Amino acid sequence: MKATVTVMLKTGVLDPQGEAVKSALHGLGFDGVSSVRQGKVIELDVADGTTEAEIGAMCEQLLANTVIESYSVDMS
Amino acid sequence: MKATVTVMLKTGVLDPQGEAVKSALHGLGFDGVSSVRQGKVIELDVADGTTEAEIGAMCEQLLANTVIESYSVDMS
Repeated sequence: MKATVTVMLKTGVLDPQGEAVKSALHGLGFDGVSSVRQGKVIELDVADGTTEAEIGAMCEQLLANTVIESYSVDMS
Repeated sequence: MKATVTVMLKTGVLDPQGEAVKSALHGLGFDGVSSVRQGKVIELDVADGTTEAEIGAMCEQLLANTVIESYSVDMS
């Protein structure tokens, strides 16, 4: 089964990567872009029966830095 | 309005970052993980009326390297 984890910087944490992307988009003429935040998405193939709590443990221990990042888990 | 762009390496393209995450998860005892692919997610605040085609143009020109990456756009 598949699990998708999305990790984003928490609101209020400066996102220099997102700022750089925004500047580059403006440079290309896409002036309507007012804000950009960049995060990561991790697609996991896990054993059947893996619970969302186990995926949460992976996030807490490795995938996300919970001091500055928040994560969401989507099982399918 | 918001647009979310997800960029993943195409199937068949080696993903060393994903492999590293998989090894680290195994090292932490999460043995049920058989495959990991890592990509990026970009959240854009765009002007009202921005079309999916315009977001697609941003992806083609900047956000994704379409030689090795595929992207999907979600407007909301």
